[in-house]
Amino acid sequence: MRPEDGLCEILLFALTPPRLATAAGRVQEIADATIARLRGLDLDGLILYDIDDEAARNPAQRPFPFTPTLDPADLLADYLADWPTPVIVYRAVAKYARADLRSWLSAQEPSKVLTVLVGAGSSTTSAATALTDAQAWSREVNPHLTVGGVAIPERHSRRRNEHARLLAKQEAGCRFFVTQVIYDVNAAKNLVSDYFYECSARGRPLVPIVFTFSVCGSMRTLEFLQWLGVDVPRWIENDLKHAADTLEASYQLALAAARELMSYCRRLGMPFGINIESVSIRKVEIEASVMLAAHLRSELTGGAAAQ
Amino acid sequence: MRPEDGLCEILLFALTPPRLATAAGRVQEIADATIARLRGLDLDGLILYDIDDEAARNPAQRPFPFTPTLDPADLLADYLADWPTPVIVYRAVAKYARADLRSWLSAQEPSKVLTVLVGAGSSTTSAATALTDAQAWSREVNPHLTVGGVAIPERHSRRRNEHARLLAKQEAGCRFFVTQVIYDVNAAKNLVSDYFYECSARGRPLVPIVFTFSVCGSMRTLEFLQWLGVDVPRWIENDLKHAADTLEASYQLALAAARELMSYCRRLGMPFGINIESVSIRKVEIEASVMLAAHLRSELTGGAAAQ
Repeated sequence: MRPEDGLCEILLFALTPPRLATAAGRVQEIADATIARLRGLDLDGLILYDIDDEAARNPAQRPFPFTPTLDPADLLADYLADWPTPVIVYRAVAKYARADLRSWLSAQEPSKVLTVLVGAGSSTTSAATALTDAQAWSREVNPHLTVGGVAIPERHSRRRNEHARLLAKQEAGCRFFVTQVIYDVNAAKNLVSDYFYECSARGRPLVPIVFTFSVCGSMRTLEFLQWLGVDVPRWIENDLKHAADTLEASYQLALAAARELMSYCRRLGMPFGINIESVSIRKVEIEASVMLAAHLRSELTGGAAAQ
Repeated sequence: MRPEDGLCEILLFALTPPRLATAAGRVQEIADATIARLRGLDLDGLILYDIDDEAARNPAQRPFPFTPTLDPADLLADYLADWPTPVIVYRAVAKYARADLRSWLSAQEPSKVLTVLVGAGSSTTSAATALTDAQAWSREVNPHLTVGGVAIPERHSRRRNEHARLLAKQEAGCRFFVTQVIYDVNAAKNLVSDYFYECSARGRPLVPIVFTFSVCGSMRTLEFLQWLGVDVPRWIENDLKHAADTLEASYQLALAAARELMSYCRRLGMPFGINIESVSIRKVEIEASVMLAAHLRSELTGGAAAQ
């Protein structure tokens, strides 16, 4: 997978590692079940999130308690050896000391692993490592490693400078971006548009933005997404609240949102990808996520098989 | 036309009267040309705006100078006698003294004229008449006159209570609403959704919201719309700024926005209509507006002929 080519519309699937307290045998079962579920999807890559306690970013009560999860690098190394595509391992850089992060970055095989380096969730968090340091180390110790960054349309709605932040990350070596879960398509289009025209004005190349979608089976999950900073338009919140089947309604909304962004990016000439995130651990929601990925696979051009 | 039936999706076309200084002969020429242009559209009604100097609502410099326009009631009475459908005459109530407005309201024939009563553009404007007074007089002197109100999605984005304002206007007798020009579809959907579910929660009937769209042939026109309080998403502003043909791009954007709202309202079960406003006096823009109305006529169910 070379997301920086921007020639094909990549499809990713994102997982949160199991809780740290999970027994090794059970983790292997979960990993095997995941591989079995996702194998038929013809994915371009798998994303493994790195979960940090984000209490610092939001003073409001967290709707679900924070439980530490397995390090995604360990999950990959110890349980996902059979997974056939490249894997994008997130690194919440604030969690890691300099020596540990440098040694992890240098040990990765660029044809198999990509990384997304994520800064601290809040500027008041005391971070072991700053994002700009992590980016510099990556260039230094493993220049062929493909590094990505996060793109937050919600931040663009508030401060109108997320496009400039993306360009700064790009100058620091980022070759693709991944958004958080998108419910506000208008905000995503505003960010894409400002980024697109700013690249053009500065004569910089466009790197792909991968848009993340998820299904949502309950109002509790929606609350959690909102707590995490996802802007949910009132009409979507109302639709989900009054839906006879929240999961099915959220599936249709995610599909429509993905199609709108895909069509917008194609018209603009903006390289993009799609990432489906499995937010909940309920089986029915996981299966709906897989179905959503399969549905979108059939509407994306290119794909793993074409590379 | 009985917009309160909500049974058919009505199509309106909105005109701003010519400048007050225009010679009577020239006004008749404009009126005749307008009738000729619009006659084939199978409109359910014609809207005549009542232009007030809105300088009070915005401290920023007005992009176009304010010039007083003909009273829409005079335009209708003196120049549009041949027009075949009902006409919706706007009344910027703050401009009128009690006696004048009461006598105008009482003189209207409800099968031929409807009115939209509009409050002062800013709460600091010194108004001859308050909106609630005008609504009360209308009920008192001409109870069969169909009265509408304005709906402002942008106000809902800022204060989140526009749906409650619509319900209050409805209690005061409003039987339909007309929006200002819509560029931010998401904001319009948020308002429709909150209004829809609030009516349901309070056991109130739904009255139709008529969504207004316009084409925009230049960035100067867009600036003027923004000055008037229309929220234009960044991506639309960028698209129009970089379009090879601004008018054609705005036509496609308006068409897509109208379709999205139509499809949303149909799914929700919300009665609605479409209004095309001719903002500019340039011939090419007027013709594009007429084409847009014709295009949407073919996609709306019902229509004048079906009534």
